[in-house]
Amino acid sequence: MDVRAAVAVGAGKPLEITTVQLEGPKAGEVLIEIKATGICHTDWFTLSGEDPEGLFPAILGHEGAGVVVEVGTGVTSVKPGDHVIPLYTPECRQCPSCLSRKTNLCTAIRATQGQGVMPDGTSRFSIGGQKLHHYMGTSTFANYTVLPEIAVAKVREDAPFDKICYIGCGVTTGIGAVINTAKVEAGATAIVFGLGGIGLNVIQGLRLVGADMIIGVDINNDKKAWGERFGMTHFVNPAEIGTDLVPYLVNMTKRGADQIGGADYTFDCTGNTKVMRQALEACHRGWGESIVIGVAGAGQEISTRPFQLVTGRSWRGTAFGGARGRTDVPKIVDWYMDGKIEIDPMITHVMPLEDINKGFELMHHGESVRGVVVF
Amino acid sequence: MDVRAAVAVGAGKPLEITTVQLEGPKAGEVLIEIKATGICHTDWFTLSGEDPEGLFPAILGHEGAGVVVEVGTGVTSVKPGDHVIPLYTPECRQCPSCLSRKTNLCTAIRATQGQGVMPDGTSRFSIGGQKLHHYMGTSTFANYTVLPEIAVAKVREDAPFDKICYIGCGVTTGIGAVINTAKVEAGATAIVFGLGGIGLNVIQGLRLVGADMIIGVDINNDKKAWGERFGMTHFVNPAEIGTDLVPYLVNMTKRGADQIGGADYTFDCTGNTKVMRQALEACHRGWGESIVIGVAGAGQEISTRPFQLVTGRSWRGTAFGGARGRTDVPKIVDWYMDGKIEIDPMITHVMPLEDINKGFELMHHGESVRGVVVF
Repeated sequence: MDVRAAVAVGAGKPLEITTVQLEGPKAGEVLIEIKATGICHTDWFTLSGEDPEGLFPAILGHEGAGVVVEVGTGVTSVKPGDHVIPLYTPECRQCPSCLSRKTNLCTAIRATQGQGVMPDGTSRFSIGGQKLHHYMGTSTFANYTVLPEIAVAKVREDAPFDKICYIGCGVTTGIGAVINTAKVEAGATAIVFGLGGIGLNVIQGLRLVGADMIIGVDINNDKKAWGERFGMTHFVNPAEIGTDLVPYLVNMTKRGADQIGGADYTFDCTGNTKVMRQALEACHRGWGESIVIGVAGAGQEISTRPFQLVTGRSWRGTAFGGARGRTDVPKIVDWYMDGKIEIDPMITHVMPLEDINKGFELMHHGESVRGVVVF
Repeated sequence: MDVRAAVAVGAGKPLEITTVQLEGPKAGEVLIEIKATGICHTDWFTLSGEDPEGLFPAILGHEGAGVVVEVGTGVTSVKPGDHVIPLYTPECRQCPSCLSRKTNLCTAIRATQGQGVMPDGTSRFSIGGQKLHHYMGTSTFANYTVLPEIAVAKVREDAPFDKICYIGCGVTTGIGAVINTAKVEAGATAIVFGLGGIGLNVIQGLRLVGADMIIGVDINNDKKAWGERFGMTHFVNPAEIGTDLVPYLVNMTKRGADQIGGADYTFDCTGNTKVMRQALEACHRGWGESIVIGVAGAGQEISTRPFQLVTGRSWRGTAFGGARGRTDVPKIVDWYMDGKIEIDPMITHVMPLEDINKGFELMHHGESVRGVVVF
């Protein structure tokens, strides 16, 4: 079938809006009509050519929502008409990782997904007979896409596509980092580095679980109002404090009879390895945990003195907020519909597919929190 | 009173065995007759001058066992005649750290302990009127010493001093890293880097909790028999495998339907920052935890790609095995007396105080697992 898609033809080049061909679902696969898709930094990272594993030509996009149109043989968990969110982290419920009870990083289709193809080793997308790569197993920058059944989360039908698409990545990553990875407790002190589309969701996750002190750190003062909108209690602009950031944050978080400072939990949402170190070192002696969420550039490394760990700080990371997609994503959609979390104010720009390159520009210049393409 | 002590007169100089003067216990303090003390790498680290916080002249030693001789006013938890183990990590049970339920790093006397004095800011030790520094709050290289009450663990009276002194540091650090910090579960796969006095105790800790695969890594083949003696199931000498260590270990630990390798838990007992990185990267994707136990040289840093954390590995550390001294040390003494853990074979050398410099030589050359001075 012919579908409308934004094609990434090569590193550093604008997406090309065109008609491509899509084969129907094979066994265990699902054809989905994408109704809306968010534009995320990770798409930009790959498009820019900085991602060493990026493949071209490809159809990018990994933050979508849509409706099941057709299912391949053997598919039992969804049927035509179901509303779904595509999952770049699948949940097969049978691999050692799914069964470990310790991680969400399902390994069932890891190898083929990384190669830009479906689990049978072939692509469903082509243009003029030339193969196009899938991307993150989702390829939501097209009005129809094919996914493995295990990479599809069924969600309630009254939830608006142009909002819940954001749950396909940013919302779940930020909130999940708080509740699944860090398991933040009520009363905690936390610091969030970087108040973009992920950082704001970390902040609302911290508000959700009852954190006391929620400090946001960003070099852009415009982010202060945004952070406060979602529960931030204190804002720090490192460029304006006139001193080193880590001792400033440690001093700011001093509490208790011994007046030792440092946060119970810190979150890096920048991808900057220097900030990741600051996030670790701003943790409280004895128990502070720092969670890396941001994706660093190829070859970049984090460093610290091991003394930071020996005295009780932990350095950890999270992918897709530690969420099991098919199990947890529908719950987050419920939370949104119940008003426990907010999404609407974060969707700052909505556009047709034809304007997707403008959407990337807005994001890259920090003008949008989240831009969403509606089909 | 006059006491016999080994005095560290300066960095890099041999200890001097001589008579020094010791004041009796002030309020909240306890006078202890030290019956035996282990010789640990940390003492050597300070004596060598590599410890940037080392103070001289001082009485080193932090792995002792003895008997309470006299108590200062207000002391209620121990009385003359009680058998005790001095604690370089105290347990006041009242500071924010003790009350956090998250760390053993009591802060009650942290500042003064680091300055080499008792909590009132003065030293009890002197020689010819010249002040001598306490060391780690314990100073067990003397046949009598004074400690704060909160830094004394009362233990059963039928336990031999020349064995349980080792519980004052090495045994508790190694076993505690397994049970308190990593919380290793039965069936786990673990790798221990460095099979010295700490590493062997990590191994017996892993055996105690029922780990399946216990891999020991050391560049000294003599350590293979030692590791096996305490539960090690596989030995790897990095110098003899003819390939890079991390992929070798990952391959060795492949298991499950997806054949992804890596250990559930790894422990660095070397203090070498390159090994610390290998220990992290030899962890299993999704859930592997690496625990830093070894103390690195001043200014040295650990590094890795943040991808290691984002894909589910955790980098952590431990001090005194995460043990609360007054609460947990008596239990470990019980475990030793009940035969749940072993100590006797690790005490390879016993000597009088006069031979303590020979004891350091034996340790430095890897000839002893643990040397113990008996008074």
